[in-house]
Amino acid sequence: MHDDLVMMLNQLSYELFRRSIDNAAGLNCRVASVGGAQILDAGIDTRGSLAAGLVLARLCLGDHASVKIHPADPDRLVSDNSVHVQCDHTLAACLGSQYAGWPIQTDDFFAMGSGPMRMFRGREATLKELDLSETGEHAVGVLESDKLPTESVIAMIAEQCGVQPSGVSLAVAPSTSIAGSVQVVARSIETAMHKLHELKFDVRTIVSGTGNSPLPPPAKPGDMVGGIGRTNDAMLYGASVTLWVDTDDEAIEAVAEHVPSRGSKDYGRPFAAIFQDYEYDFYKVDPMLFSPAVVTIHNLRTGRTWIHGQIATDTLRESFLS
Amino acid sequence: MHDDLVMMLNQLSYELFRRSIDNAAGLNCRVASVGGAQILDAGIDTRGSLAAGLVLARLCLGDHASVKIHPADPDRLVSDNSVHVQCDHTLAACLGSQYAGWPIQTDDFFAMGSGPMRMFRGREATLKELDLSETGEHAVGVLESDKLPTESVIAMIAEQCGVQPSGVSLAVAPSTSIAGSVQVVARSIETAMHKLHELKFDVRTIVSGTGNSPLPPPAKPGDMVGGIGRTNDAMLYGASVTLWVDTDDEAIEAVAEHVPSRGSKDYGRPFAAIFQDYEYDFYKVDPMLFSPAVVTIHNLRTGRTWIHGQIATDTLRESFLS
Amino acid sequence: MHDDLVMMLNQLSYELFRRSIDNAAGLNCRVASVGGAQILDAGIDTRGSLAAGLVLARLCLGDHASVKIHPADPDRLVSDNSVHVQCDHTLAACLGSQYAGWPIQTDDFFAMGSGPMRMFRGREATLKELDLSETGEHAVGVLESDKLPTESVIAMIAEQCGVQPSGVSLAVAPSTSIAGSVQVVARSIETAMHKLHELKFDVRTIVSGTGNSPLPPPAKPGDMVGGIGRTNDAMLYGASVTLWVDTDDEAIEAVAEHVPSRGSKDYGRPFAAIFQDYEYDFYKVDPMLFSPAVVTIHNLRTGRTWIHGQIATDTLRESFLS
Repeated sequence: MHDDLVMMLNQLSYELFRRSIDNAAGLNCRVASVGGAQILDAGIDTRGSLAAGLVLARLCLGDHASVKIHPADPDRLVSDNSVHVQCDHTLAACLGSQYAGWPIQTDDFFAMGSGPMRMFRGREATLKELDLSETGEHAVGVLESDKLPTESVIAMIAEQCGVQPSGVSLAVAPSTSIAGSVQVVARSIETAMHKLHELKFDVRTIVSGTGNSPLPPPAKPGDMVGGIGRTNDAMLYGASVTLWVDTDDEAIEAVAEHVPSRGSKDYGRPFAAIFQDYEYDFYKVDPMLFSPAVVTIHNLRTGRTWIHGQIATDTLRESFLS
Repeated sequence: MHDDLVMMLNQLSYELFRRSIDNAAGLNCRVASVGGAQILDAGIDTRGSLAAGLVLARLCLGDHASVKIHPADPDRLVSDNSVHVQCDHTLAACLGSQYAGWPIQTDDFFAMGSGPMRMFRGREATLKELDLSETGEHAVGVLESDKLPTESVIAMIAEQCGVQPSGVSLAVAPSTSIAGSVQVVARSIETAMHKLHELKFDVRTIVSGTGNSPLPPPAKPGDMVGGIGRTNDAMLYGASVTLWVDTDDEAIEAVAEHVPSRGSKDYGRPFAAIFQDYEYDFYKVDPMLFSPAVVTIHNLRTGRTWIHGQIATDTLRESFLS
Repeated sequence: MHDDLVMMLNQLSYELFRRSIDNAAGLNCRVASVGGAQILDAGIDTRGSLAAGLVLARLCLGDHASVKIHPADPDRLVSDNSVHVQCDHTLAACLGSQYAGWPIQTDDFFAMGSGPMRMFRGREATLKELDLSETGEHAVGVLESDKLPTESVIAMIAEQCGVQPSGVSLAVAPSTSIAGSVQVVARSIETAMHKLHELKFDVRTIVSGTGNSPLPPPAKPGDMVGGIGRTNDAMLYGASVTLWVDTDDEAIEAVAEHVPSRGSKDYGRPFAAIFQDYEYDFYKVDPMLFSPAVVTIHNLRTGRTWIHGQIATDTLRESFLS
C-alpha cells in the first residue's frame, strides 16, 4: 500500500494543478508557459489570493493533506487567522514532497524547490535514507521566488526528473505574497518531522499529524529577509504540531523535549534579527532552531503523550507588527 | 480579468441556487413559486437550518467566498460558534453583491435586498461610484423578511434587473431565523469595506479579506428589533476583520483607527437600546457605528499592519443573553 | 418531509461507504469481506487515520451532518484539536442513527452498534418512542471493536435488519485507534439529546445543533477501559453543545440545568476511575453522568438562551496525560 500511495502524489497534484489552471481567474492567478512547461503564477505578475495559497500548500503536499484557514485567537497568535494542516500520509506528503529540499539553481535563477517532483528526482540524502521515490509523466513542484522560472530552469527540472519539459508543472509565489505566506506556514508538520529526522528519530513510525500556525502579514515585496523572517517566526514561535506515532516510549523520550524550537541556542528573537547577526548566512543558523513552537506526540503503542514547547506571543508581536 | 469575474457572480449564485432548490428538504427549506420566480424559503413557512444560512450567505456573496461555521471561545464571543468568511474578490462579492443596499418596496411588501442582482439593477450610488455592474438572464438575490415576496415584488425586481420574472431567483429568511442569523453575521468583511468606503478609502485597493463573527441566538419571531439588535451586536461588538490591501501607508493611516465601531459616538450599548432611543429611526443612528469590532489591515506594499478596536464581551453578553 | 429524510439515512451512508471502500488506501483502511458483507477496517489490522475517523462519524450520522477537525486551545481543552459537528437533522441523525444503542452479541463477538442500520432493526425502545424507522436494501453500521465481526454477526445483523447479508455494510475501529477516537467524540450532540430524552424533554422540538469536543489521545491498544475513559472524559469534561429548539420556555427551564454532566453525583473524576470503583459494571454508573460538559439551548420561539455547565480542564489533563 505504501508504494501505491507514494506513486500517486505527483499524479494527484497534477490533477489539482490542472483544475487550478482552469480556475486561474478565480484564484487571482496568471498562467504562463515557459520552455514548454505550464506555470501557475500566484504572486509575481498578479496579486494572488488566500485560496491560491491553499492550492499551493496542497500541491506541495502531493494533495495528500487537508489545508484550511481557521479563525485564530489574536491574543495568543497575533493574527486573526491560522493555517491548519491535517495529514495521514506524513512521510510521503511532508518529507517526500513538501520539504523545500531542492536548491534549483541555473545561471539565471535560484529558488528552493518543493513538491512531489522531488521524488521523481530522488537525489536528496533524506529521500534516499527514507526510500522515497516515484516515477511518472507529470512532475509537479512549487517554487518560492519573486521571478518566473527561466527556460534553463525548466530544462534542468525536466532532465533531473526524467520527464519532458511539457511534463513539468510549477506553481510560483514569493514568500512576501498572500499565497506565499499561506503556503509557507502550511509546513508545520513537515518542520516537526524534519527536526525529528535530524534528531535520528525514525519518522516512518509517524502515522498522522496535525499542525496549526498563525498566518503572518506578508512582508514588503522584495524584502526577502522580512518574508523569510515572518514566516519562520510563525513556525518557531507560533506553530503547534501534534503527531500520532507507533513506536517505543524510549524512542520518543529520547527526543521529545528537543523537538520544539525552544531547544535551540538561537531561540528567542525574531528570525530576521538572528539571520542578520549571522550576516545572512543560513549555514551559520543553528539547524535545531527550525521547528514548531509546541510539539505534542501521542504514542499509539502505549497511550502516553509528550507535550513540549510554548507559544511566544511577544516574539510574534515583535515580528508581525514591526 | 476583473470584468470576467464580475460577470460571473449572478451566474455562479444561480448554479448554487438551483442545487439548493434540488436539496431543499436536506436544508429544511421550502420551495415556492411567486409570479414566475423561484423562491427558496429558509425560515418563513419552515424552520430552516444552519446549512441553509451558509447557502444564503454564499448566494449573497455571488458564491465568490468561503463561509463556514467554526467553534468559538464563549468566554470571548458569548457563543459556541462563529461564522468565518474568506474572500479574494472583496469588491464584487462584498460591495457589488452582499451589501443590503436595495430597499425593495411595493404597496404590499418591504425588505432590504442583497445579492448579485443588485449589479443587474445598478442604480445604487455605491455601485455606480465603483463601476460595479453585470448583465445576464438570471438575477439572484436574498431578502431579509418574515413574509414571502409578492407578485408585484417579482415584477418590479424583474423589470429593474432587466430579466424575465422567471429569471428572478430569491432566497428569503427573517433575521430571527436560524438561517437568517447565519446569513447576516456573514457580512463582517462587507461591513468593514462599506465603512472604509464611507471614510473615502479607495476600496478597490483591497485584495483579500477574512472576517469572523459570533453566531448570536435568534431573537423571538416577529421581534424585528431584537433580530436586528443581536445580529448588529455580533458585528459591532464581536466581529474581527482582516484586510490585505495594496496602497500607500498614508491612505491607511488616515482611516485605520476610525474603521472599527468604537469610533462612533453611539458605541457601547446593545443596538436595540440605541435604536429605541432614536425612536426606531435608522437615519438617526450614527452611520459610523456600522462596522466590525476589530479591524486589522495589512499593507502588501509596505509590510505594515494596523490593528484597531476591541471585542466587547460584556455588551455581547447583555445582548445575546437578555 | 420528515419521512423522506429519515428514508435517506442508510442510503446516503451507503453511498459514502462505497466511496470510502474505493479510497481505502487513501484512508489507511483495509477492506474485508465477512459472510457476504463488506467491512471497512479503520483500525484493527491497519493503522487507520484521522480522515477515516471523520468518515466513520459521518457514517454513524447517516451522512446528515458535517464533521470536521478544528484547531483547539490546549490551555482550555488539553488538546490541539477538537471535533466539531454541525447538524440540522438532529433527531434522525443523532438518535435515529448515531446513538450506540444496539448491543450486538453472538457466541463469538460483542460490540455496541451504531449507525442508521438501527432504524432498519427498529427494536430499541427509544426508536419506537420517537417513531424512528426506515427500510431499504443496504443497512449501514459502525462497530466499536478491536476484532472484525464474525459470520454469525453478519447473519444476525442481516436478519434483524431485514436485508441480505450482502446488504450489510459495516465500518469497524477500536476506541483506542485514531479513527475510533475521532468517531466517538463526534457524539457530542447525540449525548446531549440522549440525556434530554432521559430527562423527558421532547427531543423532537430540537431543530439544529452544534457540538465541539477535544480530540483525546488514543489509549493503549487493548486497554478498553482507558479508551472508553478518555473518550468519555472528552465528552463529560470537555464538550460544548448548542441546541436550537422550538418549544415553550417552561419545557427548557425544567431540564436545562440538569443536562450537563455536572449534575451527576459521579461527576468530577476521570471516567476510568469512576468505572473502576463500580467494578467495571456500566449499570452502576449514574446514567445522568453521560452528557456534555456545557450545554447551551436557544429557544427559537422566545429568543431566550440557557447556558449550563463548565469545561473541567484539570480533569481533562488528569485523563489525557496520565
